[in-house]
Amino acid sequence: MKASTYRKRIASLREKLGDLPVDTVWILQPENRRYLSGFKATDGQLTESSGSLLITRKERLLVTDSRYTTEAEHEVVDFEVITLKKGLAEGFPKLLSRLGTRNLGFEEQHVTWGLHQELAKAFRKLSPPVRLFPLKGFVENMREVKSTDEVKAMEASADLMSRVLAEIIRKLRPGKTEKEIAWQIEGLTREGGAESLAFPSIVASGPNSALPHAVPTNRKIRTREPITLDVGVKLDGYCSDMTRTLFLDGAPPRFRRIYKTVREAQLAALEKIRPGVESTVPDGTARAIIREAGFGDYFGHSLGHGVGLATHEKPRLGPEKPVTLKEGMVVTDEPGIYIPGKGGVRLEEMVVIEKKGTRILTKDRHFHNF
Amino acid sequence: MKASTYRKRIASLREKLGDLPVDTVWILQPENRRYLSGFKATDGQLTESSGSLLITRKERLLVTDSRYTTEAEHEVVDFEVITLKKGLAEGFPKLLSRLGTRNLGFEEQHVTWGLHQELAKAFRKLSPPVRLFPLKGFVENMREVKSTDEVKAMEASADLMSRVLAEIIRKLRPGKTEKEIAWQIEGLTREGGAESLAFPSIVASGPNSALPHAVPTNRKIRTREPITLDVGVKLDGYCSDMTRTLFLDGAPPRFRRIYKTVREAQLAALEKIRPGVESTVPDGTARAIIREAGFGDYFGHSLGHGVGLATHEKPRLGPEKPVTLKEGMVVTDEPGIYIPGKGGVRLEEMVVIEKKGTRILTKDRHFHNF
Repeated sequence: MKASTYRKRIASLREKLGDLPVDTVWILQPENRRYLSGFKATDGQLTESSGSLLITRKERLLVTDSRYTTEAEHEVVDFEVITLKKGLAEGFPKLLSRLGTRNLGFEEQHVTWGLHQELAKAFRKLSPPVRLFPLKGFVENMREVKSTDEVKAMEASADLMSRVLAEIIRKLRPGKTEKEIAWQIEGLTREGGAESLAFPSIVASGPNSALPHAVPTNRKIRTREPITLDVGVKLDGYCSDMTRTLFLDGAPPRFRRIYKTVREAQLAALEKIRPGVESTVPDGTARAIIREAGFGDYFGHSLGHGVGLATHEKPRLGPEKPVTLKEGMVVTDEPGIYIPGKGGVRLEEMVVIEKKGTRILTKDRHFHNF
Repeated sequence: MKASTYRKRIASLREKLGDLPVDTVWILQPENRRYLSGFKATDGQLTESSGSLLITRKERLLVTDSRYTTEAEHEVVDFEVITLKKGLAEGFPKLLSRLGTRNLGFEEQHVTWGLHQELAKAFRKLSPPVRLFPLKGFVENMREVKSTDEVKAMEASADLMSRVLAEIIRKLRPGKTEKEIAWQIEGLTREGGAESLAFPSIVASGPNSALPHAVPTNRKIRTREPITLDVGVKLDGYCSDMTRTLFLDGAPPRFRRIYKTVREAQLAALEKIRPGVESTVPDGTARAIIREAGFGDYFGHSLGHGVGLATHEKPRLGPEKPVTLKEGMVVTDEPGIYIPGKGGVRLEEMVVIEKKGTRILTKDRHFHNF
């Protein structure tokens, strides 16, 4: 992303800051951190942070430790990099005093209860004391609607994934194991320039395809059974996410019917995804079609989710918690039917919401190939 | 691990429960969850859990959602799998009432402030209400000392990593890029049966080797410069972690001196790692040697850390917070010297602490190869 993009984001954050009883925002969540500063590091373990941001009306600091100083200095746009020699709990209070912080906004879905307690204790000892104020989805909400540059980045990510998936599908032969196929996907996406996978690839064949979240096994794929490929990459930070279910040498009648139902549900939902519509509507549309076809008990998950710097982000397209869809959101449309012990079908496209409907970003199509 | 291993762990947890004002323990942290139940799933994003455990004196539940039910039922030992149809906040209070929970112990380093608030609010409405009690490192402390079976698993993990690293090193040639080498490491470890890498491989050449936490780049490796390989795999859940720094066609005199200092520091520290010693002692020993050689400013990180189901776990071998080392702990010994802009050397072994000293698990040696 261009430097001006980061400046715009910071300006927008500062504007939102005016509505809150907060003078400093503290950002730990890795994608939020990257969104605002350009710092690409990930966090190895939940309890290990590679850095966090402190943003006031005037200043921007990236606070890290010596392992990440050089990377941070290379990557951040307009942030001063501060290297703490000891842990957060020790150096952080001093930093806040220097910034003149009185009310610190923190990400309540990312700061653990234990860290909050530790900091609150240290902050009470400062004079003047610093108070902690919970923020829920503060930067996540900013990330919900994508800019033109972001949509381009996601298009590139989806293009890479589509190309690789097309090649994988062309080369599918009975006897290959799920693990081998998953590994080929990873190799081709890396060679294609992906930063990493967006999530561990799902390659699920036969009865395994009945598990929405299957982990690839040593099972060999066979003809005339569902083979579900749910894959995505991260390219320049942005994720793609797409699913195809296919059959070598055609599908048995039962799965042909299931496939047609899922495809019909997906297309009907797609029609409903447009600006101004409640996020529950496309889900309800797909669910009704699946229910009417007699598979109501076999579609357990939500229809879709937002995608961006994270694979799963706002908005959620499920049966609950409606939000209004907006132009610039990027979401998945992924109904599925899963018959325990037998197999399942899921079809997923990633689409950007435009003025009058959607544009599909995951371009490769392998429908009705039986 | 054998079923009896899990039973022993649960018995030990229940015994510790007697010392706390808690009747039910709630375990969310993925490695803690696997340690106690055998459930292997990982959590895709920080805000997404694939399940959690509820353990009372009589019952063991694994609470998950429909995406993970089948996997959970296959993997867990002696846990009843409960599938919540809606989110945690909705189904959880009812479950606790069923269990008769009054005081719920939660992992304060893993439960976010926001989730705690949400649950506390729901729990207050129950009659009788459920109180939340923070647990810090409850299961992590149990994991600190390894059983014989665990040491065997870690030995197998280190063996696989050592074999792969030896092959990689044999094939190192000038002109290969860091990324290519990292990718080869990943391929060979997967072929060797690894579940995954334990962490993203570090392949850092020339000036990049001055970054303790370098990410592989497109830089081509050259002769007579440091090439640092910091690698590990996860095999049957258990991690390995090892680092070699080497030079093709020999090291320039400056790096020869740095290498000898790091190696001397590593061996001296190794001598100190034994039962009954404070964890700060080996770190101090290595640090003193590096300081005396004039490189005191260039060793920023701790000497080492515990390894197990997680790459980084207890105990920490650093200059602060001493704990007493015990037989059965598995730790790393990894001093380093990093000259910004020039390059660095880190050497790392993973060792198990035995009665009279240590046994090195990372067997391949590539020392003094210049």
